[in-house]
Parts: sequence; C-alpha cells; structure tokens
Amino acid sequence: MAKTAGIVIIGNEVLSGKTQDTNSHYLCKELRALGVELRRISVIPDEIELIGREVVAFSREFAFVFTTGGVGPTHDDVTMAGIAHGFGVKVIHHPELERRLRERHGQNINEARLRMAEVPEGAELVGEGSLYAPAVKLKNVYIFPGIPKVLQDRFEAIKERFREAPFLLKVVYSKEGEGVIASILNDLLASFPDLLLGSYPVLDNPEYRVKLTLESKDPSYLAQAFERLLSTLPKGAVHRIEGS
Amino acid sequence: MAKTAGIVIIGNEVLSGKTQDTNSHYLCKELRALGVELRRISVIPDEIELIGREVVAFSREFAFVFTTGGVGPTHDDVTMAGIAHGFGVKVIHHPELERRLRERHGQNINEARLRMAEVPEGAELVGEGSLYAPAVKLKNVYIFPGIPKVLQDRFEAIKERFREAPFLLKVVYSKEGEGVIASILNDLLASFPDLLLGSYPVLDNPEYRVKLTLESKDPSYLAQAFERLLSTLPKGAVHRIEGS
Repeated sequence: MAKTAGIVIIGNEVLSGKTQDTNSHYLCKELRALGVELRRISVIPDEIELIGREVVAFSREFAFVFTTGGVGPTHDDVTMAGIAHGFGVKVIHHPELERRLRERHGQNINEARLRMAEVPEGAELVGEGSLYAPAVKLKNVYIFPGIPKVLQDRFEAIKERFREAPFLLKVVYSKEGEGVIASILNDLLASFPDLLLGSYPVLDNPEYRVKLTLESKDPSYLAQAFERLLSTLPKGAVHRIEGS
Repeated sequence: MAKTAGIVIIGNEVLSGKTQDTNSHYLCKELRALGVELRRISVIPDEIELIGREVVAFSREFAFVFTTGGVGPTHDDVTMAGIAHGFGVKVIHHPELERRLRERHGQNINEARLRMAEVPEGAELVGEGSLYAPAVKLKNVYIFPGIPKVLQDRFEAIKERFREAPFLLKVVYSKEGEGVIASILNDLLASFPDLLLGSYPVLDNPEYRVKLTLESKDPSYLAQAFERLLSTLPKGAVHRIEGS
C-alpha cells in the first residue's frame, strides 16, 4: 500500500477567485512521482477554528499533510495560530527563525516582522531551501507559505524523505468513444481489480476520443493488464500509446 | 449575509496530477461575481462512500453545492451513485435524459450509453445548455461533469438563479512591504471589523511589493475604509489603485 497524503490550501484569495491555486497541482504531480497516494485536497478560508479542525482531521487520516498559505506578518496570516489551536499548543517564536529575522532586519525589526518566526510549540525546522527560512513541521504536518516559488524551493529541499515505490503508468489514446469501450474496461477491471484505470473523454481532438490511463506499482501486473486491454479493444481503436 | 456555497471536485485524475483542475477557479470567479460566498472546496477520489459522505455534509452546511466530475459511462464515473448513496436514494434512469439518449444513438444505444441518463431518484433537470443534457439538481446540489467546456455551458445557463448583492472591491498596490504596513492593516480592521481585507506579497514585480484587497457588499462602508487606508499608509506608498 502506498503512503497517503492530504493537502490543505488556506486562502480567502483562492475561494474568492482572485488567485488561481497552482500549488496543489504542483504538489499533486510531485507526490505522484514520489509514489505517494494523495487522497484529498481541501481549500478553506483564513479562519483559526476551521484551519485547526481541518489540519487535525487530516493529520489523523493521512501519513503526510501539507498546508499552503496563511503564513506571513499580516492579520490574515493565521495558519500557525490555527494549527496550534487545533493541536492544543501555544504559538511561540522559534529561536532559530527569530535569530535569522533579527540578523536580516537589524534595527528595522518590528512586531510584524517577528511574526515570521511564529510556529506552533513543538514544531521543528526541516530542509534548507534557497530562501532564508526552511519548512516548518509539526507531527506529520508540513507547513508551507502560499507563494509558489517559495513553496517549490522548500518542497524540493525535503522531498526525498517522502519517496517510495513509484506508480508506473501506461496511456492509451482510443479512437473509439466511451460508449463503445466501457464494457471492455469493466471486463478488464474484473480481471485486474487492483489496476488503477482512468478513462477521460477528449472533446477537442480529431484524432482520438478517449485517454485511458493504466497504473500500478507492480510492473508485471501492469504489463499483463496492458496486454489484455490491447487484445480486447476493437481493431484499429488505438491511436497512440505512451508510458514506461 | 451572503449565501454560502461549497464545491466538490471528484476525480482521481486531479489528485494524481494528470489533470489540472480549472473548474474550481472558474466557479470561484463566477460565484464571487454573483455575490455568493464560497466557503470550501474539496477534491476527493472517485469512490462512492467518500462522495456520498462529502456531498451530504456540504449540502447540510452550505446554501448551494456544486460537484464536478465523475459523470459518464465508464467504471470510474460514480458521482451519481455516490450522491444517491449519501442521500439514501436509488439511482434511476431519468425519463427525459433516456429519451434524448435513445433519440441520439438510435439502434447504437447500449448499457454504457444509457448510464448517461442515470440520476439519483428525486433529481430534476435545470437549465438548457448548448449540449444535449442540462445540469442535474438534487436538493441544493448541482451536479456537473468534469469537462470544462460542458460545465461552463451548463453553469452559464442557470447562473442567474444564484445572483445576489455583489461584493464590491478596491485594490491598492503598495510599494511598502508587509513588514511595514501590517500594523496599519490591523488598525484598519479594528475600525472596520466587517471589512474583507486581503494582503498578498508580490515577489517578482519591481514596482510594488504588496497587493491589498478591500471588499464589502456595503458601498459606503467600503468607501470609508478605503479612505481611511489611503490616509494612514506612508506617504508615497501607493503605486496604483483599482476597483469600482
């Protein structure tokens, strides 16, 4: 069984349509490539109670939790307070983060800037990204800011700790539509119940009508399922094949 | 108070990083423009139990629920079954949808194609999109397919039913960073507690460092808060102003 993960996107700017969240798609692709099974994404407002409840629920349900957004010096940055509230701990200034902030800002340090040192009590720093602060981890929860470039730097710095057996993927582009091949796919799944089989209609391509994805962590299981599919699709239905 | 909404995105293809969900951002922008307060987005797998539990929870919590994905003729299209399961009703063939499918496919109709007529018992059809099927509604839940063009056509056809007083928006681009203006924003919120105030750092623009968003449904409240902000920001801090 793959290890599981959940993502909590914290941000009124996403829910109100001002910003398109791209962090979750980045993390979806990265986690898949690492062999981790992402089970759920939640997008919630910048509200302490909601953040606490959601992150604690995710922490209990999944092996890894990633949060993005709500980290910063202003009134709407309440992720640290929310997570602390959820786990019933205080918000403290992390000594190492505070040291770096004082070094960076010198005599221009102020209360707002020091808020960047806030973490839930018990949190540790992990990784060394290209920016001045590493990621913050509390239990199985990794807390990232919302700015995509910063998130990506910090995730890159720690991602190897999540790696396990990869998902192997075959893609078949079918000229026949789902109405024709649905029963073939059902038969395939009856023989290969552990196959991860996706079927996605494509409206705007003149050359094929459905993209089929076959996945497994077991190479021989995947190869057998793939051969079975090719031998049961109607003659001439396969437009193109991709994958390892 | 604005009416509330939640979105449930159903799709392994999103969680596994194969497809970037664009439907939620489309709906975020549309709902905001309609004056509806979107409170939560969940992205979950194509699994009957999970879909049922999530949609019922959303239906109880929010005025409107929108689901996307998992509607179609293949094995991984289990949204209708999941929602029916959640509400404790059967999946039936909607007579009008079945009539249209039989008209469209003639003697090529088959079991897979007839699955496109499946709805939870008690569901009604709403709107008349440009494609052959309208949206499906059960209680306060609007069920859309995952293909963006189809979703957009169908949402366009019914969106006026959700319209209420709009959110009014002012945007101020600040040359000063959050470390400098955070206390000004706190003071602003102390005086205007109902203001929806967002502060978003911008890393890659040489001309300004923070995008501030001020929102309210009350034009005079927004105007007063906006004037207060302009009068309290440091001299020369405003790069640009946008908004109604």
